Amino acid sequence: MKIKDIGGEFALIKRISKKIKSKGVKVGIGDDAAVLDFNGKLVVMTTDALVEDDHFSLKWFSPEWVGMKAIEVNASDVGAMGAKPKYALVSLVLRRDATVEFVDELYKGLRKSGKKHGVEIIGGNMTHGKQVVVSVDMIGEVEREKLCLRKDAKAGDFILVSGYLGGSKAGLELFLKKKRAFSSVKKSHVEPKAKYEKVSGFLKNINAMIDVSDGLASDVTRICEQSKVGAVIYADTVPIKGEVRRAAECLGDDALDYALYGGEDFELVYTVSEKNLGKVKGFVVGRITKKKGVMLYQKGKERKITKKGFDHFSS
Amino acid sequence: MKIKDIGGEFALIKRISKKIKSKGVKVGIGDDAAVLDFNGKLVVMTTDALVEDDHFSLKWFSPEWVGMKAIEVNASDVGAMGAKPKYALVSLVLRRDATVEFVDELYKGLRKSGKKHGVEIIGGNMTHGKQVVVSVDMIGEVEREKLCLRKDAKAGDFILVSGYLGGSKAGLELFLKKKRAFSSVKKSHVEPKAKYEKVSGFLKNINAMIDVSDGLASDVTRICEQSKVGAVIYADTVPIKGEVRRAAECLGDDALDYALYGGEDFELVYTVSEKNLGKVKGFVVGRITKKKGVMLYQKGKERKITKKGFDHFSS
Repeated sequence: MKIKDIGGEFALIKRISKKIKSKGVKVGIGDDAAVLDFNGKLVVMTTDALVEDDHFSLKWFSPEWVGMKAIEVNASDVGAMGAKPKYALVSLVLRRDATVEFVDELYKGLRKSGKKHGVEIIGGNMTHGKQVVVSVDMIGEVEREKLCLRKDAKAGDFILVSGYLGGSKAGLELFLKKKRAFSSVKKSHVEPKAKYEKVSGFLKNINAMIDVSDGLASDVTRICEQSKVGAVIYADTVPIKGEVRRAAECLGDDALDYALYGGEDFELVYTVSEKNLGKVKGFVVGRITKKKGVMLYQKGKERKITKKGFDHFSS
Repeated sequence: MKIKDIGGEFALIKRISKKIKSKGVKVGIGDDAAVLDFNGKLVVMTTDALVEDDHFSLKWFSPEWVGMKAIEVNASDVGAMGAKPKYALVSLVLRRDATVEFVDELYKGLRKSGKKHGVEIIGGNMTHGKQVVVSVDMIGEVEREKLCLRKDAKAGDFILVSGYLGGSKAGLELFLKKKRAFSSVKKSHVEPKAKYEKVSGFLKNINAMIDVSDGLASDVTRICEQSKVGAVIYADTVPIKGEVRRAAECLGDDALDYALYGGEDFELVYTVSEKNLGKVKGFVVGRITKKKGVMLYQKGKERKITKKGFDHFSS
């Protein structure tokens, strides 16, 4: 049976996930990271792999940028729990013809982003394969009252994002279609940054949080599924930079689609009660509803949107 | 510059390794696993990836066996620190044409070995690529007095192994050369088992320890390098099963080479002071020396042996 026949990647993950039994596990499968309790210290752990020609192309990524991205995506997952990234293990699959310079540059990138986030590389392993895979495990620490899970959104909460969306997807399309202009949009694709620090000052006022790795539609849907609620996203308030709108126009696409379904912007999406709205920063883009399903409100009409963010097994 | 030009995989790992600065890190790069201190609880973390056609061939591995091996190799690394494996994160690269059945079977294997070792899968991620990669991060817990590092071998220590060596390599050669016989030897290749439980009763009497993942010669060399000592291995005492000797003969190989350079037997190699020798179990295979370098004592002569265990970038 093909993976797409059971509903794709998300359905497959649901199929293989089991309820966690260990007492030391505060949060298991189904959030950005797992949370473990060691003698009262809450430790956050996540792993994410970048595969050549899927998460990056060496046609437009320098090895250094690949290393940076591998740290940023994981730091973003850790940060989306309200945690502070601390340590990383790096598992590397190199092509047999890999050069020393390639590995040096890759590590330069890993360490550069690591230093920025206060993350030290404490271990890993290396092997060879047909394509480059950079898998990073990241460990963070979080204070109990700052822990932000996907499952804690409440009906009536406002949905906010920490910054502009759609840039990474626009950048990718510009590369794929070999457009010369829009260099700063392209940069947002090859040099993505974890942005959890934007929310670090008001974590206690956030109910649920996730980072935008698969697009606003997918990531809000994940919050809703885990919280057993629904949502309305206000199309007109989704923050998209002018240059991204212009790039989309030049490419014949709708910039809103980039924001909703593009992903890899690594902004944070979080829900906040009406009472706490004054204590947080960000762009309000929607509201959590009791009624399930995620709706898009646009031009006076509501239509249902689905998690059609990137699915590795859909085509 | 090619990786083999700087001395291969081991030299490359040395090149990219840096001294760990964080206070919470008790052991960093250079051992089987990293050791972190969270509020006094010592937590062991390791990551190891299995790549299709390198660490397993789907010609002779069932998907279930691949899953089992992914857990066993990591449990072995955690166990080689004297720790008890507890949690795993699974990072999966699947081919785009992967079937649901393949993933189900792989997870069956992951959970089967997980259950055996008391390991729960608490997270992970999934993506696609040109070949299957199963990367597992494993977290364990260890009591301070049971922690066994590579760096604590002392001149005069006896070197012991927990069981027979060379079986996995013999099994691989039998598959590669399409030999029909020796099914139990082949089984040791496709169903490797972590064996750290063999030493769990006397961890406090062990000075240095490592698991045999790359062959006795390589793994003793690692202990020596980290401990700044040398070693003599007594060729005649290296434990090799009769069936492995017979398989080697049938293949025209030397069974001792399988034991020294084959790897993936996942027995433990450990050093014990003369005073504590009566308190431990295992086969004595050599002695730690003050003089650096690893020597093989065979037929009344000593010759130097090197880490020529499997190097991913040597050919």
